[in-house]
Amino acid sequence: MKLLAIDTSNRPLSVAVLDDTQILATTTTNVGRNHSSTLLPIIEQAMAQAKVKPEELERVVVAAGPGSYTGLRIGVTTAKTLAFTLNKALVGVSSLAVLAGNVVTEGQLVAPLFDARRDNVFAGLYRIENQRPVNIIADQHVSVAAWGEQLAAYNEPIIFIGSDVDKYAAPLQQQLTTQFVRAQPQFDLPQAAVLGLMGRTMTPVSEIHNFVPNYLRLTQAERDWQAKHPEKEHAPYVEKI
Amino acid sequence: MKLLAIDTSNRPLSVAVLDDTQILATTTTNVGRNHSSTLLPIIEQAMAQAKVKPEELERVVVAAGPGSYTGLRIGVTTAKTLAFTLNKALVGVSSLAVLAGNVVTEGQLVAPLFDARRDNVFAGLYRIENQRPVNIIADQHVSVAAWGEQLAAYNEPIIFIGSDVDKYAAPLQQQLTTQFVRAQPQFDLPQAAVLGLMGRTMTPVSEIHNFVPNYLRLTQAERDWQAKHPEKEHAPYVEKI
Repeated sequence: MKLLAIDTSNRPLSVAVLDDTQILATTTTNVGRNHSSTLLPIIEQAMAQAKVKPEELERVVVAAGPGSYTGLRIGVTTAKTLAFTLNKALVGVSSLAVLAGNVVTEGQLVAPLFDARRDNVFAGLYRIENQRPVNIIADQHVSVAAWGEQLAAYNEPIIFIGSDVDKYAAPLQQQLTTQFVRAQPQFDLPQAAVLGLMGRTMTPVSEIHNFVPNYLRLTQAERDWQAKHPEKEHAPYVEKI
Repeated sequence: MKLLAIDTSNRPLSVAVLDDTQILATTTTNVGRNHSSTLLPIIEQAMAQAKVKPEELERVVVAAGPGSYTGLRIGVTTAKTLAFTLNKALVGVSSLAVLAGNVVTEGQLVAPLFDARRDNVFAGLYRIENQRPVNIIADQHVSVAAWGEQLAAYNEPIIFIGSDVDKYAAPLQQQLTTQFVRAQPQFDLPQAAVLGLMGRTMTPVSEIHNFVPNYLRLTQAERDWQAKHPEKEHAPYVEKI
């Protein structure tokens, strides 16, 4: 089964083309947030390098959040459009799980995180089982202090992964009851190849059009709107664009 | 320090541009052995994605073998030419160490291998120390049986890595006194990002022109020539091309 995997959740951009477990081509950049202009050419290059035509794809796998609003919208919208126009399956995978998937030490606890500003992080806790990350504490938008408290319940070493880890290493380290392990820098980058391997065996979404990124928090505009319209039910922002 | 890393030792092709430990852009393909026509465009793309100009590079890091004759010649010749014309440092890293570098479990024994045909492999044994592979048994061109014998001396689990491992898993597994661990498929691909991180802190070669790939065996042409000229000293083949 040939698949295309896309991750533009944050500053890095990663694209991979797989044939079952074989990685045919993959490109990862970590330069700027111009994903809107670079994503399609990089997909095109990767497909050409892999010698795979769009109609040969069987599914599109996308990192579905949490992450940057703009990054997620670009990745998810591109993946939805490709899956819909090519009539292929679409699979969404947690952007934090993709990072955790860079670690394969059996039984290891892994805590991927992204900076969410103002001493908040997007974070989840995973355990590597059968060489895949299994979610232990759900992905959440949480203050660094509250996250450290949740992790303090674990009496085993935790690998922290993500390029924003260093910013919050000191407060997290203080709260932990156990060993704080910093992943090597090459593991801080999400790899679409890992995303593709994870999404290969997952259940596709049933309605491509209804698929939305998992932002895990509201935009400022949505918060303002909600404050002014407390009586109305909130609809996911991406459906409006 | 900005650097360019290149690995075309075997079927996969991997290129990365780094700035110190930050990976700016990396592309890996695993489709065919047309490295001679694809390497330069992929280098150009990666440099453009990384927004790095050739003159900004401080070193070129290349996977120096063992591997395929043709693949090594393309990678090493390209790296030598770039380093020489740009007047930059050149660093060669074992192609087996690059694969071993995909594993970061502290203290773990890792046995990367490439198929060398006729029940022979290119193989070496590494231990991960301070998250870098340290050579324990030197890279060599060896029969699978003799390699299994050497590894049988170790009483701890060994992770086997490389896309040719499955071909020789059965005989190796039989000889081991300890656990045979198969790395996940995404680790079978050499990653120029890992190569770059390793080569970043290594001592560059002193004479770019004299740098040759580490083939670890002679070509058929060289074996024939040696048989006919047993009295002459053997000079590395790549110097003649």
